[in-house]
Amino acid sequence: MIRLTRRYRFSASHRLDSPQLSEAQNREIYGQCNNPRGHGHDYLLEVGVRGPVDQRSGRVADVAALDGLVGSEAIRPFDHRNLNQDVAEFASTVPTAENLALEIERRLRAKWGAVFPGEWPRLERIRIRETKRNAIELP
Amino acid sequence: MIRLTRRYRFSASHRLDSPQLSEAQNREIYGQCNNPRGHGHDYLLEVGVRGPVDQRSGRVADVAALDGLVGSEAIRPFDHRNLNQDVAEFASTVPTAENLALEIERRLRAKWGAVFPGEWPRLERIRIRETKRNAIELP
Amino acid sequence: MIRLTRRYRFSASHRLDSPQLSEAQNREIYGQCNNPRGHGHDYLLEVGVRGPVDQRSGRVADVAALDGLVGSEAIRPFDHRNLNQDVAEFASTVPTAENLALEIERRLRAKWGAVFPGEWPRLERIRIRETKRNAIELP
Amino acid sequence: MIRLTRRYRFSASHRLDSPQLSEAQNREIYGQCNNPRGHGHDYLLEVGVRGPVDQRSGRVADVAALDGLVGSEAIRPFDHRNLNQDVAEFASTVPTAENLALEIERRLRAKWGAVFPGEWPRLERIRIRETKRNAIELP
Amino acid sequence: MIRLTRRYRFSASHRLDSPQLSEAQNREIYGQCNNPRGHGHDYLLEVGVRGPVDQRSGRVADVAALDGLVGSEAIRPFDHRNLNQDVAEFASTVPTAENLALEIERRLRAKWGAVFPGEWPRLERIRIRETKRNAIELP
Amino acid sequence: MIRLTRRYRFSASHRLDSPQLSEAQNREIYGQCNNPRGHGHDYLLEVGVRGPVDQRSGRVADVAALDGLVGSEAIRPFDHRNLNQDVAEFASTVPTAENLALEIERRLRAKWGAVFPGEWPRLERIRIRETKRNAIELP
Repeated sequence: MIRLTRRYRFSASHRLDSPQLSEAQNREIYGQCNNPRGHGHDYLLEVGVRGPVDQRSGRVADVAALDGLVGSEAIRPFDHRNLNQDVAEFASTVPTAENLALEIERRLRAKWGAVFPGEWPRLERIRIRETKRNAIELP
Repeated sequence: MIRLTRRYRFSASHRLDSPQLSEAQNREIYGQCNNPRGHGHDYLLEVGVRGPVDQRSGRVADVAALDGLVGSEAIRPFDHRNLNQDVAEFASTVPTAENLALEIERRLRAKWGAVFPGEWPRLERIRIRETKRNAIELP
Repeated sequence: MIRLTRRYRFSASHRLDSPQLSEAQNREIYGQCNNPRGHGHDYLLEVGVRGPVDQRSGRVADVAALDGLVGSEAIRPFDHRNLNQDVAEFASTVPTAENLALEIERRLRAKWGAVFPGEWPRLERIRIRETKRNAIELP
Repeated sequence: MIRLTRRYRFSASHRLDSPQLSEAQNREIYGQCNNPRGHGHDYLLEVGVRGPVDQRSGRVADVAALDGLVGSEAIRPFDHRNLNQDVAEFASTVPTAENLALEIERRLRAKWGAVFPGEWPRLERIRIRETKRNAIELP
Repeated sequence: MIRLTRRYRFSASHRLDSPQLSEAQNREIYGQCNNPRGHGHDYLLEVGVRGPVDQRSGRVADVAALDGLVGSEAIRPFDHRNLNQDVAEFASTVPTAENLALEIERRLRAKWGAVFPGEWPRLERIRIRETKRNAIELP
Repeated sequence: MIRLTRRYRFSASHRLDSPQLSEAQNREIYGQCNNPRGHGHDYLLEVGVRGPVDQRSGRVADVAALDGLVGSEAIRPFDHRNLNQDVAEFASTVPTAENLALEIERRLRAKWGAVFPGEWPRLERIRIRETKRNAIELP
């Protein structure tokens, strides 16, 4: 069993402001990330896939198929977008790196079986580096 | 003569859309950077300063003074901001990395003499890395 | 369950010389790291925290609280210090990256409950990158 | 228990072409990596070792011994080499990053006991970063 | 006047062996880079372009046009190739980073006027980073 | 004419404290870098060399000769050392990155002609990156 990790990048803007919190709470919890007109980041996404090495191809996964799935589900919908306004999920959910990771995992799992119908490879790990100082990892 | 380079970071959102171009031209020239609701980047700013080494301090510049100037003029006004909406200059000018570099140079030169009244150190170079693939440098 | 990793930096000097080893053994085991007057590194510290995502804030942990704890317990006591002479623990223990990681974990756990009184988030992982070639991780 | 990770680099060329696949399949699966005359990469190898911290030395492993083992078994045989033609194992096996990681693990385990005869440290993890976008990890 | 730098990557294999040197000289000068079956690198190419900022677009150069030119002339001919065998120029010239930089400059200048017919932007600088330790820059 | 840049690393400790300044001035100018028992950094040194490309070797400089010179004059005297106490020059001069760059240049120029007796290559540029935020460059 072996893990393959592929790295992707996307640039997006967002604003952290929770509808379940008061204005004062939002300012306190999110600090400058609560600025009304938003800011942005160059996100680094790592997708980790686990499985046995295929004897014939010497690979854990069909890399082109994986890149295609991640591109259509997790890069193009977010790249050069405003997460709050361009992504339906984040109309009501705060686009923190945590929620972004959960949403990317949800999207990849929804289409996983269509691209990888066998037992392997499995989606094992999602990691988002929001800034040099802040990263989120599932599980 | 020696050059000191200090590195700073800020995260901001922007939209590339020039009032002097038609809608079609904007879409063609800026591509996905023209997306109406904006996107964002983690900008890396390098400020290069030149001068002789001070015999007593062994330094080209008072680093704390330089950090103070850059922080107040070139980091805090842009960090966690929407460049188009939060920065007056970019209400009518496209916030490309080129214009951002020119604006940062203008702001630093405007206050330079107040912080560094002598002949040296001089502001020599501004560099902005917008993404891993794109950087702008003055002069 | 999700993991948040925050990254911090500090610069320190140290000398590797164990009181439990002979002079010859110290020279053999630590090589140039045994040089009597010490040398230094720019340490990179990663603190990994695990927990559920808070529904209202979209976050695993109060980042400001975490930064405050790590800053007071694990950065300021070491940053721009001589580990052997400025940190009581390393008067009798060799300040290898291993022992530094154990000491940082001990310090963070000692104050953890005061900052995060609930069941979550939990301190899950400490990683110290001493140089580009050498890193230590707990557990 | 603690993990030590050491980082090494080597530069090599390879061609991905499986004898168990047809020409058309090879072209489809490996794309430009199937180019007949090969291409190359700067590989980054991370070796993770686990064990208790030795009380006297403050270390998980004798770093010089580890570097010696990895150098002779996993760096010198591959560095500045053509993996397909210079490494016997890859005469019949495709030198994907997956197979390279498995081969490096096999080589290190074969000599591990001679260098580290005790219960600890144990070889825990092998990671190969083939390009900025592609990494393989064992287990 | 401002400089725009764009960054590109390509992976290639090569062997350093000069027809104008004896076997012994080749081994002495190029060391392990003279290994008969070649080795490889992940090359990082930076292309620097200088010009005034266009008032309407806020840009020094049409980035898509530049990427197109560099892609067709300097990336695709080398990426995932064997420099000695796949590139005509290097049948008789040693593919050192120096000669690679000169060849890339020659190729870009040959087509520059067709893509950028005006006075600006000008091709100002070529930089190739062959490994983390070795870089070549023109002029 | 072409520039070759080679990159080297060394780890050292230092304390910034000028004999030409009062205690209060030292504390004010150097801040925490004035801590009495010192701290340390992982220095990155870049040496830039300029010259024509040798027709036979395809190189600007004999890289092994350059590495030998830099290693003996600028790496081994500083690596894993205390700059203030282990380097004679810094007994009376403050080991700022500026003075370190000047000292490295002086040492390399003193031996340059013995290693490179011809007109080319010439030592063109010295760059020291002290931390991720601070770099010094000559000229």
